[in-house]
Amino acid sequence: MEQLKQQVFAANMDLPRYGLVTFTWGNVSAIDRARGRVAIKPSGVAYETLTADDIVVVDLDGNVLEGRYRPSSDTATHLALYRQYPDIGGVVHTHSTHATAWAQAGLAIPALGTTHADYFLGDIPCTRPLSEGEVQGDYEHNTGKVIIETLGDAQPLHTPGAVVWQHGPFAWGKDAHEAVHNAVVMEEVARMAWLARGINPQLKPIDSWLMEKHFSRKHGPNAYYGQREK
Amino acid sequence: MEQLKQQVFAANMDLPRYGLVTFTWGNVSAIDRARGRVAIKPSGVAYETLTADDIVVVDLDGNVLEGRYRPSSDTATHLALYRQYPDIGGVVHTHSTHATAWAQAGLAIPALGTTHADYFLGDIPCTRPLSEGEVQGDYEHNTGKVIIETLGDAQPLHTPGAVVWQHGPFAWGKDAHEAVHNAVVMEEVARMAWLARGINPQLKPIDSWLMEKHFSRKHGPNAYYGQREK
Amino acid sequence: MEQLKQQVFAANMDLPRYGLVTFTWGNVSAIDRARGRVAIKPSGVAYETLTADDIVVVDLDGNVLEGRYRPSSDTATHLALYRQYPDIGGVVHTHSTHATAWAQAGLAIPALGTTHADYFLGDIPCTRPLSEGEVQGDYEHNTGKVIIETLGDAQPLHTPGAVVWQHGPFAWGKDAHEAVHNAVVMEEVARMAWLARGINPQLKPIDSWLMEKHFSRKHGPNAYYGQREK
Amino acid sequence: MEQLKQQVFAANMDLPRYGLVTFTWGNVSAIDRARGRVAIKPSGVAYETLTADDIVVVDLDGNVLEGRYRPSSDTATHLALYRQYPDIGGVVHTHSTHATAWAQAGLAIPALGTTHADYFLGDIPCTRPLSEGEVQGDYEHNTGKVIIETLGDAQPLHTPGAVVWQHGPFAWGKDAHEAVHNAVVMEEVARMAWLARGINPQLKPIDSWLMEKHFSRKHGPNAYYGQREK
Repeated sequence: MEQLKQQVFAANMDLPRYGLVTFTWGNVSAIDRARGRVAIKPSGVAYETLTADDIVVVDLDGNVLEGRYRPSSDTATHLALYRQYPDIGGVVHTHSTHATAWAQAGLAIPALGTTHADYFLGDIPCTRPLSEGEVQGDYEHNTGKVIIETLGDAQPLHTPGAVVWQHGPFAWGKDAHEAVHNAVVMEEVARMAWLARGINPQLKPIDSWLMEKHFSRKHGPNAYYGQREK
Repeated sequence: MEQLKQQVFAANMDLPRYGLVTFTWGNVSAIDRARGRVAIKPSGVAYETLTADDIVVVDLDGNVLEGRYRPSSDTATHLALYRQYPDIGGVVHTHSTHATAWAQAGLAIPALGTTHADYFLGDIPCTRPLSEGEVQGDYEHNTGKVIIETLGDAQPLHTPGAVVWQHGPFAWGKDAHEAVHNAVVMEEVARMAWLARGINPQLKPIDSWLMEKHFSRKHGPNAYYGQREK
Repeated sequence: MEQLKQQVFAANMDLPRYGLVTFTWGNVSAIDRARGRVAIKPSGVAYETLTADDIVVVDLDGNVLEGRYRPSSDTATHLALYRQYPDIGGVVHTHSTHATAWAQAGLAIPALGTTHADYFLGDIPCTRPLSEGEVQGDYEHNTGKVIIETLGDAQPLHTPGAVVWQHGPFAWGKDAHEAVHNAVVMEEVARMAWLARGINPQLKPIDSWLMEKHFSRKHGPNAYYGQREK
Repeated sequence: MEQLKQQVFAANMDLPRYGLVTFTWGNVSAIDRARGRVAIKPSGVAYETLTADDIVVVDLDGNVLEGRYRPSSDTATHLALYRQYPDIGGVVHTHSTHATAWAQAGLAIPALGTTHADYFLGDIPCTRPLSEGEVQGDYEHNTGKVIIETLGDAQPLHTPGAVVWQHGPFAWGKDAHEAVHNAVVMEEVARMAWLARGINPQLKPIDSWLMEKHFSRKHGPNAYYGQREK
């Protein structure tokens, strides 16, 4: 459990390092599937003073098992994603500038180039608005539900992120480190897509064969990017 | 009084730290309500050399009580806000890039997402233009008056900032630290709103229930973001 | 002369510090009016290795009097400005991003707010294109001449900068330090003007009384910004 | 060979220094023409841990001769360029933000000012899309071929870069250091061109005499920018 807390601490500290957060506007969690335990950032604690010891441990129903702080206010969203997607091991939420701008615009981040296709096999979808009842009810849980509804049949590790309507990005991955990696990618492709559409409002989506080529260079059995384990 | 000067010094030094100022284009003050004393940055003194000892103390009429420097040329604007709003304890003025762009555009910064709603319950208003007489008369005092006129019936801690027509942002809070915090938020939501409107010129304002949900997550008796005092 | 070289060195080193240059794309000079000597950056020498000793001294005809390097390739532009305007003591040229974008757009940087008016009493003008003959002839000298033609009757210290058509910004001031200060302002107001017009394409120029008020707060006999000499 | 590896290592480390890469999204190579050896970054190795010893050496057919890692997945593109252009000594590929945005927009980066003309004698071209067959076949080799097809009769050192359709920039130069220098220029002129067209959608391309003047100030027998070898 200490190792999981340490990983979650390190992944949280990557958020300010990559410029994804202002103040405390972000949180990362990871899950230990064997024990059904989720480690997550405490709510509202500054990155400047955060330690691995401050990380909170909850079960999949949100009961706090370890830690002197209250967990992130977004914990219920993280838990909904873990319960739905057995393949994911880490979740991250930020208000990173350009991805949040697409969320505020209410639009999917379109797949416009190979930078995007190296990580996301298709657009990064935007959720529908939550209804008044969904907001006033179990808001954070419903945020998780609407992300799941939006993904539909998509493989979560082929679409490792979404933007929530008028809110901001969530990303995930096989562990906390990869989730943050995908959040950095989302912010950068959100910025590139904004720029590219500004340069050419009639621009075309990426050719499907180019998208599949790039995604499979980095993912799946035929990946040939990077180094193989020896 | 030394403690107030120290707080005002620290809050001023946060302006370059958060990238809100070029040269000396910004100033922060705080008030000691019990004694009716306001501590404020001296005019035109560089942040690189500023010390807590350089902070100037004035009364609510602007008379200098302490300090070897002249106070900020915007002192009269700060004092007008303190006299009108008994709940505020700190005021900040900057020329931060994106908030100033909205001021130059003569438009309120629209509430387009939850990042905005976490701190501002509605648009961040833009003042009307000052008349020729108001500019040539007691200009800085009149700047305070037009901010107050623009806020109207709004609760100042629910709308903790405004942009002044063709000029730039003012923000405030319960103390100097919170005022600077709100100035950082204004700059970031100003940037996000510019981006989001660039992506989708027909974008919709945030749903009212989502705005109220987010504002009340962080403010008021039912706030559940962050840690409670024990 | 060593003092002048030291000032010019320090002012040149401020260009990378304020983010105004990529590689060696900038140069600052200053003049000793009594002796008719101009100290200027050597051409193409990297800021990382530049020393005060590398600064070149020329006379007003461009003859090198001191220094082991060749002076900036833009020296003739600097000299034309010094000969025309007896009040200026420092000149700077950069390719800073946003000011250069206005130069490439072939448009004056419009006076849209008080940030601009604190330093420039009106628009920052853009020169006409140089003719084929002017480019193929004494190009750098002709660049100085077209700046002077563009300023016309304007007071050079009230319009301490211009953008050269399809090229980039030149700025000046009473000494090298103030020239760089004005170059930083040009870049920032160029960025704000681009943003403000993006937000509101119909935006209005700054009210004349507000422009004059702000310029005279910082300049002239009635200035009241900053600290007075005692 | 150690010297070449050291140069390639240093040039690769300049990519994060100049802000051209996120994660491992970039690679630099250099060629020893006498021996027909190319040194290149290993695939997917983080810049934070990269050493000169990690650089891989291949021959012009892509056979690995030295190094414990696999070479960059883009090696075949580099090799195609070296085989075609005997004058170039270094090649670089990045996903730098603004140059990639032009690639995604499917447009050449237009020559709009002297900053551009100092390094590129004309537009920075964008390739045509690769066909499905070209992507599914020898993709990286075909990427090199389409760059060569796009350059056509242009002198590669007069057009030291191109953007690949929906992908990103490649740049080159007489050695690895100059290739990276040109990649920095591409990113900056891509940003300036985006800004300038945003300010003035009707803006004109740079006057031909001004382009030739600036290119020849820095290149060729009559160059007079910088210091001459003594």
